[in-house]
Amino acid sequence: MVARLRFAWNPQRPGVGPVVDAMKRSRTSAPDPTRLVRPLLSTLHAYVPGEQPKIRGLIKLNTNENPDPPSPGVFRALRDALDQRLRLYPNPTSSLLRERLARFHRCRPENIIVGNGSDDLLALAVRAFVEPAATGASRARSTLQFFQPSYSLYPVLGQIHGARLHSVPLAADFSLPSLGARSKASGWEWDAALSLVTTPNAPSGRGYATRELDRWCRRQRGVVVLDEAYVDFAEENAMDLALRHPHVLVSRTFSKSYSLCYLRVGYVVGHPELIAALDRIRDSYNVNGLGQVAALAALGDRAYYRANFRRIKATRNWLARALEDLGFEVLPSQTNFLLAKPPGLTAEQWLAALRERKVLVRWFRDPRVKDYLRITIGSETECRALVRAAQAILKSIGS
Amino acid sequence: MVARLRFAWNPQRPGVGPVVDAMKRSRTSAPDPTRLVRPLLSTLHAYVPGEQPKIRGLIKLNTNENPDPPSPGVFRALRDALDQRLRLYPNPTSSLLRERLARFHRCRPENIIVGNGSDDLLALAVRAFVEPAATGASRARSTLQFFQPSYSLYPVLGQIHGARLHSVPLAADFSLPSLGARSKASGWEWDAALSLVTTPNAPSGRGYATRELDRWCRRQRGVVVLDEAYVDFAEENAMDLALRHPHVLVSRTFSKSYSLCYLRVGYVVGHPELIAALDRIRDSYNVNGLGQVAALAALGDRAYYRANFRRIKATRNWLARALEDLGFEVLPSQTNFLLAKPPGLTAEQWLAALRERKVLVRWFRDPRVKDYLRITIGSETECRALVRAAQAILKSIGS
Repeated sequence: MVARLRFAWNPQRPGVGPVVDAMKRSRTSAPDPTRLVRPLLSTLHAYVPGEQPKIRGLIKLNTNENPDPPSPGVFRALRDALDQRLRLYPNPTSSLLRERLARFHRCRPENIIVGNGSDDLLALAVRAFVEPAATGASRARSTLQFFQPSYSLYPVLGQIHGARLHSVPLAADFSLPSLGARSKASGWEWDAALSLVTTPNAPSGRGYATRELDRWCRRQRGVVVLDEAYVDFAEENAMDLALRHPHVLVSRTFSKSYSLCYLRVGYVVGHPELIAALDRIRDSYNVNGLGQVAALAALGDRAYYRANFRRIKATRNWLARALEDLGFEVLPSQTNFLLAKPPGLTAEQWLAALRERKVLVRWFRDPRVKDYLRITIGSETECRALVRAAQAILKSIGS
Repeated sequence: MVARLRFAWNPQRPGVGPVVDAMKRSRTSAPDPTRLVRPLLSTLHAYVPGEQPKIRGLIKLNTNENPDPPSPGVFRALRDALDQRLRLYPNPTSSLLRERLARFHRCRPENIIVGNGSDDLLALAVRAFVEPAATGASRARSTLQFFQPSYSLYPVLGQIHGARLHSVPLAADFSLPSLGARSKASGWEWDAALSLVTTPNAPSGRGYATRELDRWCRRQRGVVVLDEAYVDFAEENAMDLALRHPHVLVSRTFSKSYSLCYLRVGYVVGHPELIAALDRIRDSYNVNGLGQVAALAALGDRAYYRANFRRIKATRNWLARALEDLGFEVLPSQTNFLLAKPPGLTAEQWLAALRERKVLVRWFRDPRVKDYLRITIGSETECRALVRAAQAILKSIGS
């Protein structure tokens, strides 16, 4: 999404003489475009995705992409799919992919919906389960609940829909608030229409035990989406909860762990009634054909990806220690990134200093994490380059 | 979208002993999934896309796909893109494609938004410009207006959003209602928040003169989207209206005329304020990378596609005459399909009889077109096969 655009409208395009005359005649009655847009949209803070700059030699550790390419089977399948079928509509229900995913997760295709990336499905969940506040629905029915900090897209999705936003601060160590006697003090509401939980958490990288998530879900009376975008890099996952509780959905993506960001494929697993609700409001051809082909092939190459997950976890552990040796305070991570508080300079200054050395990491203004950098686990070579750049920066500030 | 699913939930998945125990314990308190879905969704009539059967030797003339493959440049560009970039997020603003489209339409990138097919953008337009009726907004601000018959997705998009639907019957010959003194009698409302106009019209195939559309747009006080999905097969287009009037948008797609259905790329052109509104509520990585690559390459192969458009128009004219010779009543078409009233049997019976002969066409229950078949212009070979099948059917009924 772009920031507010400067006014680029030019009614007097050269060479359109009669048009200009027509504009003059109709100018007084022409509708004002700013008044044609819903007032709700004028207060929106658009989600800002990480940069995708095209700088030669840049080490890109800012958007949690996988350093390895997709599996050989994915390339083969994509090459084979570049044929007559491109002119045809793709499978509108992603049925082959849903059948394959159903076998993978030991459930049925009716438990699964595939989307144009998991963002697409998160947006559908907001529209399917939350009433816009302006409809006069109850507080609970119009509430979208999420932790702060977590995926910064959630409040944007809620605002777009006109939901009531309820943001619950995580503990200082990013653990879930206690479920004990004082649970009311956590600020968590148990009847919110929809709760979105990033697990493992981003941007902290902290993982949550399935047993703990289970206790949370049991108390919740609305729909819970466990957003497992990073779960392949974690020690455990909560897929069983989606197949056990009728109000729990698990969201996954092929972007990060399967190296398929470019192709936009995500999916959600859960009770057929909730899946059917998402299905009724999605675009009819919502998943591009090559995305379906690539995701199917990736699921056939599990050994390749298991090796990739192991490698990334090993690099993550190496990088965490290396950064700690340089004085960084590194949070434990169950993801393919590290949240680390750098020494000597502010995190924002580090962001700039690393960028000067062609290393791009991510920094968030959010007060809870503004002292940290979020560093994607790249290849071993990239991570070594990051450590060298950090050493040079520390040297330059005499630290 | 699927029809209502049979209840496929099985809490007693084999081999999950402790889970079953847990279900029993929590059963009384587990939320009922049907109550978790917004009541709005339970009344939805989902859009039904045309069939995509995988039958060997089938002649598929039911979903208005182009009979020719994409241009050689598209295949080349796609093959070249199967590299490291697949692991990276695509360009989030489709900026290269928007720049290329801006040159093509002699406007600026700020006049253009690209989507995951034009359906994605039509859905965004409903959400950006129409208030849900339940918010208590005025009748005008919550009205989505469209012609009947036209693209049957429009009312579905309005229902999903909770808009007030205003469907205006087209004249019997599918022309636009008169703008003259009796224009009130047409039933058209001039202050609807959003009006969607398929031009050339589907499913009739009828084209509208830009001059006539211009008069319509001038009287309209809300946003008008001219949905030009088929315009490359027409004699004129209304793109100028989007670049001249601040409240008019033109929607286009790469699916049909560029043979890229599989890749889901559409775009909308118009005033930067309206484009910015759509942009703020779209998914941040809404267009898959290979779709952007393919669309860019297609725009570089204009000669190939111009020849394709000419060929399809020639085949269309041949097929119209051939069907008329068999007793079909064929409407004039400015698209890549024909709407034709068959002789001897009902249209529904023709649909079945053609299908038996492995020719798939489309039939709509809509009372205004239920006597017609919608026949996509396939290759010359496919169209000849259709005519032969029709001859055989006529012979078999002794007509």
